[in-house]
Amino acid sequence: MGAARGCDGTAGAAGRYPRRVTAPQRAPGGFPVVGIIGGGQLARMCAAPAAELAITLSVLAESPGAAAAQVIPSSPVGDHTDVDAVLAFAQACDVVTFDHEHVPADVLASLVEAQVPLHPSPEALHFAQDKLAMRERLTEIGVACPRWARARSRADVEEFGRSVGWPLVAKTPRGGYDGKGVRVVSHAAELDDWLAEVGRTGPLEGGLLLEERVDFVRELAVLIARSPSNQAAAWPVVETVQTDGICTEVLAPAPGLDPDLAAVATEAGLRIAEKLGVTGVFAVEMFEVRHPATGHPAYVVNELAMRPHNSGHWSMDGAVTGQFEQHLRAVLDLPLGSPTPREPYTVMANVLGGDFPELYPAYRHLMARDPGLKIHVYGKDVRPGRKIGHVNVSGTDLDQLRERAQHAADYLGGVITE
Amino acid sequence: MGAARGCDGTAGAAGRYPRRVTAPQRAPGGFPVVGIIGGGQLARMCAAPAAELAITLSVLAESPGAAAAQVIPSSPVGDHTDVDAVLAFAQACDVVTFDHEHVPADVLASLVEAQVPLHPSPEALHFAQDKLAMRERLTEIGVACPRWARARSRADVEEFGRSVGWPLVAKTPRGGYDGKGVRVVSHAAELDDWLAEVGRTGPLEGGLLLEERVDFVRELAVLIARSPSNQAAAWPVVETVQTDGICTEVLAPAPGLDPDLAAVATEAGLRIAEKLGVTGVFAVEMFEVRHPATGHPAYVVNELAMRPHNSGHWSMDGAVTGQFEQHLRAVLDLPLGSPTPREPYTVMANVLGGDFPELYPAYRHLMARDPGLKIHVYGKDVRPGRKIGHVNVSGTDLDQLRERAQHAADYLGGVITE
Repeated sequence: MGAARGCDGTAGAAGRYPRRVTAPQRAPGGFPVVGIIGGGQLARMCAAPAAELAITLSVLAESPGAAAAQVIPSSPVGDHTDVDAVLAFAQACDVVTFDHEHVPADVLASLVEAQVPLHPSPEALHFAQDKLAMRERLTEIGVACPRWARARSRADVEEFGRSVGWPLVAKTPRGGYDGKGVRVVSHAAELDDWLAEVGRTGPLEGGLLLEERVDFVRELAVLIARSPSNQAAAWPVVETVQTDGICTEVLAPAPGLDPDLAAVATEAGLRIAEKLGVTGVFAVEMFEVRHPATGHPAYVVNELAMRPHNSGHWSMDGAVTGQFEQHLRAVLDLPLGSPTPREPYTVMANVLGGDFPELYPAYRHLMARDPGLKIHVYGKDVRPGRKIGHVNVSGTDLDQLRERAQHAADYLGGVITE
Repeated sequence: MGAARGCDGTAGAAGRYPRRVTAPQRAPGGFPVVGIIGGGQLARMCAAPAAELAITLSVLAESPGAAAAQVIPSSPVGDHTDVDAVLAFAQACDVVTFDHEHVPADVLASLVEAQVPLHPSPEALHFAQDKLAMRERLTEIGVACPRWARARSRADVEEFGRSVGWPLVAKTPRGGYDGKGVRVVSHAAELDDWLAEVGRTGPLEGGLLLEERVDFVRELAVLIARSPSNQAAAWPVVETVQTDGICTEVLAPAPGLDPDLAAVATEAGLRIAEKLGVTGVFAVEMFEVRHPATGHPAYVVNELAMRPHNSGHWSMDGAVTGQFEQHLRAVLDLPLGSPTPREPYTVMANVLGGDFPELYPAYRHLMARDPGLKIHVYGKDVRPGRKIGHVNVSGTDLDQLRERAQHAADYLGGVITE
């Protein structure tokens, strides 16, 4: 695409923006511009704390109507796999971070070569982008994982199945999310289509990741922020509830969590942050298990997400410092804010799209029913099963909070009508 | 100014925008557009809750760099005294509200004629724009006021002085703010310049407002939200601390406030809201006094502000529903959120501009010193004495909270250097 001229006659940044762009407008007083690649809800939810701190955001958005582009004045549209578009975008930013983990390695390398400060770094991001690399590295640094193996053939699958028992869990090392790219398989033949891709260019080039199926008590998540100066802060360990592979509810902190397990799990999160050199907010999804020998509560790590994460949305209303403010502070190497919870419990429930495209009319009933509800809607088109918003409620009675949050999410999503 | 064409070749709204404008982009799902006339910090601070609720804002801004225009994609520049500009702006909005109270009556009348839903209405706004009208109306509805009089001549001033004692307080009925347009006078002659304006077109046309000088214990503020459906919600009564006529600190709730006075003051606020037909968030500034006969705590009303107000900034971090979210809910006639405080005390301190134009470098020290600090910076040029931001801290130890808030405000403002 050729150089485009802005409406006012000046060239767009490096002449590369694919459409007219409002250049990021820096606040007077020495304030920085934080660039975010990707215009989804995570970028969008940075807008509130950025405005409060007078930090200017610029978002490389998928479309002019992307969730973040609706609320952030500087939201050029560009393809995150297009090196030129990403480099042009980054030139107007003091630091660049991510709405998602899908920026290709060659694009990241070009940014590094152009000396763009990136958080997290490509070296760290690699471990979120490649689950086989993640398992290798976590095993090296002594973090508890499910038993796992790399499989390149049906024989590899059968051998691992014999070792850990069936069914087992197979994952595509790259490109999966929200349950996509994950299979629970009882016979090696169920992976023949994936195995056919091994060795070919693509997410399965290096093989499949096989993991034992963990007999877990519940799912937990540790949310950490780490700055380039190596300051780190951890929110309390939360319980996450998944439905069909999608997170639907978060209880913060995880109720009744064994204090020793909370400490060990948090320490594991901090160790991962340091050893993998993660900067910004990141999440470690874990299974709570019982130690096979002692019966003591223990964890095994399920997934890493190197960005603000669904398991941290509760913190927007439930902690002194929410994850989006903290992420901005971390990537700017500012001192981190307090992750202390503001109430005994905060419950987050995701709003999943249903059959009703009209969300706004639901506000009237919901707000009248529950004046303490904190509603977050992402400005996305409603599609069945899509995460289109979430609600937070804080207080002391966990059962009541869960009922309130789930009712609101179900009502907004159109699952219930009263 | 002639019709301008947008960059994409389409006409701007009604062809009247004085510069290229990003039209407000409505979120999918039936969400509304709220227009705000004026692009100051109050409009800016609506951005965070609007993004969370997927309510689109459009701001008629004083300049492209106005505080709100920095963070709100649809921020056409226009003059709030220009009927055509304001009407064109309002056409893209479902409801229009205000960042300030300075929109002239003829502009408001044109909006009403064009059937633009305005909150607050011109009838209500009149009482915030004209302090003589306000005193008349409050007296009619039985709200406690200082003794007051309208003065058109030196004789009027002298008569009122004899009646209430000297010194007395003289105010221009229109156009004052932050201590401007207010004089404490010991001799009628000190008002000769103002009296010379009486009868001429201008803020003093109808005379001066004279008030007794109230011997007050402290200043209080009642913050109320009221919706067109007549739902109202009140935050707890706060104490406001003024320095040189500018609010510098707010203690929420007002410490040690007599419960009967809290109830009576809140009831007065609710009565004013209803009787004056106020919609949206509004503030009643009060003096706490001792009843001259009984010595019981009592209030007299000082000023009204028909918009979110400095005395409510604490609620952004200190209440379940902050004043800017509540204002949006109120003007959209949505059910109001809970005004309940989240902690025993929240202290707000205003950051006033000083000699140091560079605010951002101060973040490092402040954030390291106090991870619980909530910093709000408005993106305004630093000028001595100008409100450029505020900080909130919440907790239980009021003295400590005040120290923390004041330190942060002083450090950001450059009053102290460590």
